[in-house]
Amino acid sequence: MRFPSVALDTLIDEFAKLPGIGRKTAQRLAMYILHEPKIEAEQLAKALLDVKEKVVRCTICQNITDVGTDPCAICASKARDRTVICVVESPVDMLAFEKTGHYKGLYHVLHGVISPLDGVGPDDIKVRELLARIPVGEASGVREVVLALNPTIEGETTSLYLARLLKPLGIAVTKIARGIPVGAELEYVDEATLSRAMEGRTVV
Amino acid sequence: MRFPSVALDTLIDEFAKLPGIGRKTAQRLAMYILHEPKIEAEQLAKALLDVKEKVVRCTICQNITDVGTDPCAICASKARDRTVICVVESPVDMLAFEKTGHYKGLYHVLHGVISPLDGVGPDDIKVRELLARIPVGEASGVREVVLALNPTIEGETTSLYLARLLKPLGIAVTKIARGIPVGAELEYVDEATLSRAMEGRTVV
Repeated sequence: MRFPSVALDTLIDEFAKLPGIGRKTAQRLAMYILHEPKIEAEQLAKALLDVKEKVVRCTICQNITDVGTDPCAICASKARDRTVICVVESPVDMLAFEKTGHYKGLYHVLHGVISPLDGVGPDDIKVRELLARIPVGEASGVREVVLALNPTIEGETTSLYLARLLKPLGIAVTKIARGIPVGAELEYVDEATLSRAMEGRTVV
Repeated sequence: MRFPSVALDTLIDEFAKLPGIGRKTAQRLAMYILHEPKIEAEQLAKALLDVKEKVVRCTICQNITDVGTDPCAICASKARDRTVICVVESPVDMLAFEKTGHYKGLYHVLHGVISPLDGVGPDDIKVRELLARIPVGEASGVREVVLALNPTIEGETTSLYLARLLKPLGIAVTKIARGIPVGAELEYVDEATLSRAMEGRTVV
């Protein structure tokens, strides 16, 4: 059974297409839009179209940026440490590091990881663009590449692949530490993580 | 910390305004829109604008309907029993009854209930429009009004108010049954519901 309004039903259908939004939630969102002032719906509609029109990738780090702000704010910033590049899988991962406020270097967004099962090879992600930032024999200024990929099989494979490519360039290639997360109880930490934590132990 | 794209941040903000959508979900939705084909974003944007342009209220039952379909499909239908009007608080309640496929009469949507604490009086909801459907002394054809409001204090107050207005018109005024829901276990049903179920007992 559907609402006696095609326009409302269409909006419910469109909302329900979004990930994690079921029909019941879609219905609630559509009713909200129906009752809110028209300007609210217009602003959301404009933001939707804008994001498809205006968002591009930074030609240097491949992170998302707006048309007219290329290179992106981080690549263009003079406050960042230009000797370190942190390699991440997606823009949200970069955002996670930025939230810590701790890391001050540059980023490189791969937009994926190598995954033969899904048919994703090195040429399908932004590996070439990463290598272009560290030209052989030239003074690029980059001293270290930090691999910060997700601790999955695909992430580890990609890290291994990148390490092999980057090490011959004479720069330090590091990987973020695997270990017990802050606040975790050892009793409940899984075996793989505990093993990595033991392997990666540091001098106090 | 925010994304290095104003357009994306704006979309996240707009999504986060929706009820039940937090910043993390808004971020996920915005990233989804960013990666989907442009047509998806355009369809959602169009549906948003359409719903504000095209959805109106049926002049008879006050339910939502599209411009050009007034009276609404139910009010205009010849298959419905025109002697019964079911009074509900909102369009979603009407939809709930339609989903049962059991009720074949007409509806009247109040768009609210009387709630003095919130400053909502009888004139703020569609009471006048309901009375207009049952003109005094004329043969309106309506024999029964079923009050199907939510079992809250405001709903009960509104039911009482409507019953007093409608009974003098010489029509049957009924209220949907309060009792134990199908599938419930008596052990866990609250006292108020059990009392109502006992009061409303019927002959087997």
